[in-house]
Amino acid sequence: MLKHKKDENAKGSWITYRPDIEIFDCTVRDGGLINNHSFDDGFIKAIYNTCIEAGVQYMELGYKGSKKIFAPGDFGTWKFCDEDDIRRIVGDNPTSLKLSVMADAERTDYHVDILPKEQSVIDCIRVASYIHQIPTALDMIKDANDKGYETTINLMAISTVQDRDLEDALNVLAKSPVDVIYLVDSFGTFYSEQIRDLTNIFLKTIEGTGKTVGIHTHNNQQLAYANTIESLIVGASKLDTTINGMGRGAGNCPLELLIGFLKNPQYRLRPVLKCIQDVFVPMREKLEWGYQIPYMITGQMNQHPRSAIQMMASKNPDDYISFYDQMIEEE
Amino acid sequence: MLKHKKDENAKGSWITYRPDIEIFDCTVRDGGLINNHSFDDGFIKAIYNTCIEAGVQYMELGYKGSKKIFAPGDFGTWKFCDEDDIRRIVGDNPTSLKLSVMADAERTDYHVDILPKEQSVIDCIRVASYIHQIPTALDMIKDANDKGYETTINLMAISTVQDRDLEDALNVLAKSPVDVIYLVDSFGTFYSEQIRDLTNIFLKTIEGTGKTVGIHTHNNQQLAYANTIESLIVGASKLDTTINGMGRGAGNCPLELLIGFLKNPQYRLRPVLKCIQDVFVPMREKLEWGYQIPYMITGQMNQHPRSAIQMMASKNPDDYISFYDQMIEEE
Repeated sequence: MLKHKKDENAKGSWITYRPDIEIFDCTVRDGGLINNHSFDDGFIKAIYNTCIEAGVQYMELGYKGSKKIFAPGDFGTWKFCDEDDIRRIVGDNPTSLKLSVMADAERTDYHVDILPKEQSVIDCIRVASYIHQIPTALDMIKDANDKGYETTINLMAISTVQDRDLEDALNVLAKSPVDVIYLVDSFGTFYSEQIRDLTNIFLKTIEGTGKTVGIHTHNNQQLAYANTIESLIVGASKLDTTINGMGRGAGNCPLELLIGFLKNPQYRLRPVLKCIQDVFVPMREKLEWGYQIPYMITGQMNQHPRSAIQMMASKNPDDYISFYDQMIEEE
Repeated sequence: MLKHKKDENAKGSWITYRPDIEIFDCTVRDGGLINNHSFDDGFIKAIYNTCIEAGVQYMELGYKGSKKIFAPGDFGTWKFCDEDDIRRIVGDNPTSLKLSVMADAERTDYHVDILPKEQSVIDCIRVASYIHQIPTALDMIKDANDKGYETTINLMAISTVQDRDLEDALNVLAKSPVDVIYLVDSFGTFYSEQIRDLTNIFLKTIEGTGKTVGIHTHNNQQLAYANTIESLIVGASKLDTTINGMGRGAGNCPLELLIGFLKNPQYRLRPVLKCIQDVFVPMREKLEWGYQIPYMITGQMNQHPRSAIQMMASKNPDDYISFYDQMIEEE
């Protein structure tokens, strides 16, 4: 008989499932980057209900953006996620779905705008931080943890970080009260080998701390889903998705694909498909996201997708050669 | 310092490249499944020139379909790939780009329609075979090998084949004169672990024979590119692509993505981008291909994509729920 070789690094098997794995749906938060977080209540309710029906464990609603930095007139409700706005959708959230918001380091008035947990329906504060913002991020984590929240740190743009700096950051974070440390491929530039390697480095750092590792990918090279799988196979257990892959630029790991891979019977595909059919198919006539050649170019070059996003919104979104030549020129 | 762990199974490194790796572009052949192989000469010439400029090693033109089975009036030129038609495009092909055609087991008059190599500009005959057609495929391989061609066997729909049957087939093929044995994920259903596992099984079987292993993927679950990388990392060396991922249903591994991963300086991305901009952007207004939810559903269920293709061509291509319910019902 053929000898199927079990990967010694793999943390699961084909028949069983790992109860430590949890899905973190970021549709509203990451999707909000396309339209300045201006969704109507019907959309937020649809995503909320879909997450509950699909068995997803967490739903992220948006940002806790500073109103001193971002004028409320310029952004939708979900740039700020005020308590009253959230409760208008979820009431007291009498479900097992946990709710989260993201707080960007240096762009949030966390001491004031993040309420004590007993006054909030939010369960988890996710701190997004570039490597040079770690000191601020640590204070935000302490603040949220002291107030009674679960916390995560989402270490962005790891593909631009030197090994020695990453090591320093991980060692500091391992000693902090943060619950989850996220590997974030902001530019959609990593290949599976790099994702496995980095996930193992993250896991090694948190060994014995009780913390877990999360993975957040982008689809610039059609690898968002593939890399999410690779990371979970070696041990990441918090998995970021968005419904229909909705997200800025090339978008994210689609929830519907990931549910196809995971074996926990609590996950259900049908409500996600129904939501895509009823909500996302019409929405795609107004908003654009997903893999396109310009995003591939920035992903391959390990660049922020902003220039590709500008190009896709220009009068010549198909002029790939001019864009490519310009990117090469500027490199 | 962080310890980056080298994967012991990986056959390459991040800095060097493997000279054994060759790209096999199937744009015209697999893309032809969308429009019954009815391309005009300008399209074929554009792909031919792009393959040359991009440094691709092989280009596949279409099928050697039996005119007794397929009425020439019902199909375009590239269903049959007559010698005169090929030469109208490539002349005597005074380039280093090798040309191939595909011959389906039981659907080709190979004794007659495949000329002796010295009369043909074709370099390679690729035999496509389901597991139960292996005896026919072996005779086709012998015929093409005797006539002087390079040969490959493309073992289709491996995801439906039992281990013991696959073992038998591989052992027989290892003793045949075939040059390359292809792992074909016809339904776009495999995950990376399975691709790595199967690639290793294929490699083990051909050890010491001088043969090589190829990989051909489909994008039903957005894994065509990811799985191609996984297969090559563990040792596959013939890599099937199509420009812009063009191919039936969800399409194939895009050439432009793969060139981003490979490090051989003979590969060039710019001509591929130019071809996409000039030829494929306009073509997408007439022909449809690429990842869609119905292809994901058949991929997740390890089913042939034909029902999804029919559904996408129906009046209700967005009625995902009806399609899903029907597929579940029939399972």
